[in-house]
Amino acid sequence: MTDNANSQSVPPFEAVASRLVDVAMGRAKADLVIRSARWVNVHSGEIIPKTDIAVAAGRFAYCGPDASHAIGEETDVVDVAGRYVMPGLCDAHMHVESGMVTVTEFCRAVIPHGTTSMFVDPHEIANVLGLAGVRLMHDEAMEQPVNVWVQMPSCVPSAPGLEEGGAVLGPKDVAEAMAWPLIIGLGEVMNFPGVAANDKTMVGEIAATRAANRTVGGHYASPDLGLAFHGYVAGGAEDDHEGTRMEDAAARVRQGMKAMLRLGSAWYDVAEQVRAITEMGLDSRHFILCTDDCHSGTLVRDGHMDRVVRHAISRGLKPMTAIQMATINTAEHFKLEREIGSVTPGRRADFLIVSDLAELSIDEVYGRGVRLAASGRLEADMPAHAYPAEARDTVKLGRRLAAEDFQIEAPKGAGDSVVARVIGVVENQAPTKALTASLQVRDGIAVPDLENDVCRIALVERHRASGDVTNGFVSGFGYRTRCAMASTVAHDCHHMIVVGTSEDDMALAANRLGDVGGGVVFFSNGEEKALIEMPIAGLMSNERAEIVAEKADALIAAMREAGCSLNNAYMQHSLLALSVIPALRISDKGIVDSANFKIVDVFV
Amino acid sequence: MTDNANSQSVPPFEAVASRLVDVAMGRAKADLVIRSARWVNVHSGEIIPKTDIAVAAGRFAYCGPDASHAIGEETDVVDVAGRYVMPGLCDAHMHVESGMVTVTEFCRAVIPHGTTSMFVDPHEIANVLGLAGVRLMHDEAMEQPVNVWVQMPSCVPSAPGLEEGGAVLGPKDVAEAMAWPLIIGLGEVMNFPGVAANDKTMVGEIAATRAANRTVGGHYASPDLGLAFHGYVAGGAEDDHEGTRMEDAAARVRQGMKAMLRLGSAWYDVAEQVRAITEMGLDSRHFILCTDDCHSGTLVRDGHMDRVVRHAISRGLKPMTAIQMATINTAEHFKLEREIGSVTPGRRADFLIVSDLAELSIDEVYGRGVRLAASGRLEADMPAHAYPAEARDTVKLGRRLAAEDFQIEAPKGAGDSVVARVIGVVENQAPTKALTASLQVRDGIAVPDLENDVCRIALVERHRASGDVTNGFVSGFGYRTRCAMASTVAHDCHHMIVVGTSEDDMALAANRLGDVGGGVVFFSNGEEKALIEMPIAGLMSNERAEIVAEKADALIAAMREAGCSLNNAYMQHSLLALSVIPALRISDKGIVDSANFKIVDVFV
Repeated sequence: MTDNANSQSVPPFEAVASRLVDVAMGRAKADLVIRSARWVNVHSGEIIPKTDIAVAAGRFAYCGPDASHAIGEETDVVDVAGRYVMPGLCDAHMHVESGMVTVTEFCRAVIPHGTTSMFVDPHEIANVLGLAGVRLMHDEAMEQPVNVWVQMPSCVPSAPGLEEGGAVLGPKDVAEAMAWPLIIGLGEVMNFPGVAANDKTMVGEIAATRAANRTVGGHYASPDLGLAFHGYVAGGAEDDHEGTRMEDAAARVRQGMKAMLRLGSAWYDVAEQVRAITEMGLDSRHFILCTDDCHSGTLVRDGHMDRVVRHAISRGLKPMTAIQMATINTAEHFKLEREIGSVTPGRRADFLIVSDLAELSIDEVYGRGVRLAASGRLEADMPAHAYPAEARDTVKLGRRLAAEDFQIEAPKGAGDSVVARVIGVVENQAPTKALTASLQVRDGIAVPDLENDVCRIALVERHRASGDVTNGFVSGFGYRTRCAMASTVAHDCHHMIVVGTSEDDMALAANRLGDVGGGVVFFSNGEEKALIEMPIAGLMSNERAEIVAEKADALIAAMREAGCSLNNAYMQHSLLALSVIPALRISDKGIVDSANFKIVDVFV
Repeated sequence: MTDNANSQSVPPFEAVASRLVDVAMGRAKADLVIRSARWVNVHSGEIIPKTDIAVAAGRFAYCGPDASHAIGEETDVVDVAGRYVMPGLCDAHMHVESGMVTVTEFCRAVIPHGTTSMFVDPHEIANVLGLAGVRLMHDEAMEQPVNVWVQMPSCVPSAPGLEEGGAVLGPKDVAEAMAWPLIIGLGEVMNFPGVAANDKTMVGEIAATRAANRTVGGHYASPDLGLAFHGYVAGGAEDDHEGTRMEDAAARVRQGMKAMLRLGSAWYDVAEQVRAITEMGLDSRHFILCTDDCHSGTLVRDGHMDRVVRHAISRGLKPMTAIQMATINTAEHFKLEREIGSVTPGRRADFLIVSDLAELSIDEVYGRGVRLAASGRLEADMPAHAYPAEARDTVKLGRRLAAEDFQIEAPKGAGDSVVARVIGVVENQAPTKALTASLQVRDGIAVPDLENDVCRIALVERHRASGDVTNGFVSGFGYRTRCAMASTVAHDCHHMIVVGTSEDDMALAANRLGDVGGGVVFFSNGEEKALIEMPIAGLMSNERAEIVAEKADALIAAMREAGCSLNNAYMQHSLLALSVIPALRISDKGIVDSANFKIVDVFV
């Protein structure tokens, strides 16, 4: 049997157990001994002072009052003088692609913040490169000095019938992936109506996951806690990070799921939901913390799981409880508590030295017994990861695009004006509004109405080199000047979304992304104002998170200068093709009425 | 991969998930709906009133405020009128053989007491029949209406070198067994000095278990919490039921093990150890309740896990905490929480209807959605299980034994008396004392000294038909009259132990057990006074527990009548060959100085 607890570059426990015993007994010497620690014991829920911790072969060998017997000439001895030693933090559900960087660069950014285990769902690359893309990120995960387990994406494409992306995955692919060393389960099953309706693909993927004894990730993004929720639960999802209210968290835990409370760059779902513990008094053991989506800027400026734990503590959780929710609870959920989630013998020696527990001030970060970071600075040697050519050649436009490609002919017989459907962006919300607008017709072409904040949107097919462009109208960005922004991050099918006031700039932007292999670019008056190259699948940069964060800042600045004052402006742009969320979207098949799951004409 | 969650006669979740969803949504009708329950929710730690529970295909499909939509014409509807519905109880570690009955009869006895999941270690049959014996009990487990998982015995023989039993098991056998559907892990690793010393067999067995991603059961039977304990922990044991003191429980949990608190027929280890929760305030989630060993009499008169939970509550645990320790905590330990341990969708519909939670008054017991017992009476149809001939022909004496076989010649040249080693039974303790006594020599034969409570003990080899008899002396039973008792339950090698004041009665008793295929028999003045036939491996009866309990009562009465006033008199008899426990024992190789791990002469 494939044991995905024993993977990555970590020798399995059974390969080193004899050495651990020898070190515990003093017959062999430890590689590292931490002395005089306050032991943050997440099993018993105690802080135990004056504890020594011996590490050998990358695992804990001894935790107790005195490890003198395990100290030899070659042993590194670190006296932490009463500081806390706690388990490394786990992110129970997240998308590396949201950081716009590779797995390696993501790890580089978050290790100094104390994250030593991640459960990543490479849903985005799967939509571009299919199973091969998942495997690429899986194999990159194998090389990391921290633990990165992979959830097999479950909903590719997200909206079958309404879009055609780069790949289609189904139960057979899921069954195949379950045998890979780092696959820990099925990624969030977002098609929750499909589960409740016994959709064949969903049922088959969950069955393949359960047959492999792996964990089924959930995603129930609805406030309805009635039958639809109960139907979803019965289908087998074991966790959910889409709850937002106290009663959402309580409902999930009561049904035997894990409530994953999420604090991402744009998700703020912890504060309300921890009230299920602090106010309702529910047993905290089945609550877990995660980030889901973090931009590079958040990682660089605010942190990662340390930010989430701090936030949870600030909302009234005891530090021990918050720490359990980011360590042992996560480990137990994925049935990995023999490997991670606590500072106890046999487990991987992933731990943090912390001077203040409530503030979670992390002085040092160790992974598998090696110091990876200190004082917020990475010390690990982490070579950049090279992706193969096929992963760097995914923006297939098929031809140079011209301004005319972004024009929409009015229906034959239309007069001076025509009524068009307009995608209405809503501030701080993912759902859009289905608007209409009366637009002028010039030379047979329907033209935007900048006065009323209606500009062009196009979806450029980029997976099959068809050269197809779908055109429509969007409102809400507030662009007043000649400009265009293009992005190959276009959830979830990840074609190219181009929004602009000028067909010329739209063509410039689209062609530019074709040239650099994808990313995001902003043109104004024919000039490039900002560019984030993301040559890997058109989704990820292989530059450092700090650099990507700077480029993202420049992009936001360019958007603002052109009149856009939206919060999360870039995210709003990249969600315009998300055909699973109401009300109006754009796909390679046309304008999508995503409230009613059908393609509609751009003109009413 | 073999998924031992999906075994027995229970269809795997994925085979019935669509039906569960249909029932939850009301598109299909439930087999059973429980209405108006107080839902004992072990995930959230709450009692939730006014809950309806729908069951289909043997699993929970819906738990919520109203299951009307799941009720059809064929649905059984049970209104429990506000009574509690809680998960069926789990016994996390136990030996069926201690009940002297088969798996089937054990289940028949404990189901009315609310036990619906057991984790059994068939250590005794393994010592008689080896891997084949384990498989026989495993296959019997497959047929039960409740869940019986099997731990692969780890220490067969218990005392290699000091005894030769019916079988030798090692890492290869462990690896083989790990692929069987119901094998959940490695049975208690009793050779704790071996683990701390990196004994090859122990290391290999643990490695085979970890490589199969199964749970390693522990058994650290020492009060020493120093290096020996730390060495044992580093070796990989994941639980331990041998703790007796509050600090034992705390130490185990802090080290990342589960503290299994044990209340058996003769084990009383809960009261002290729950203080780690009630007084020290440790997180209770990693504490588990179990029985280890229960005689039939205990099962019939006092109960099983219900007795343990009641006792734990009486020692100050909240009912919810005690129930969690016998349900969800156990399920999570064995990574079976998708299958058992809670009343939540997807899990096997194993539940109890209870009228008083603190008293744990169990009105009805359901297993996989079927009512198995009500008002303490079994309703399930459970045919007796037939063992094959080879399992019923294990008492191989090789010949008829005669009185002379139980005589010991004094050393050549001995005069009228000789000094002999005497095994000293200690009231209420498993360890014996290494005594000596001066015995008279008559016709060259050393004779017992009934005045001073020294009688004969013999170990009759019964696995290889060698006809060998090892003779010695024992003190402590208090037999004053002509009598003898023989038992083929002789931990752990399970040869035949005969204790008596008369060589004639000893021969009668030994031959009688040879005739009936094993068990326990008591002779007095040449007459059979009590007999418990245990034809299966010489360890188990296939009669009902009530009948076996009655026969055991008769045996104890016969022992008393002959002068024995020991508590646990039968157990003391059956432990006299237990060469792993100090100080003096008997084996097929001779008299064992088990404090110093060597064979010694019967005469000093």
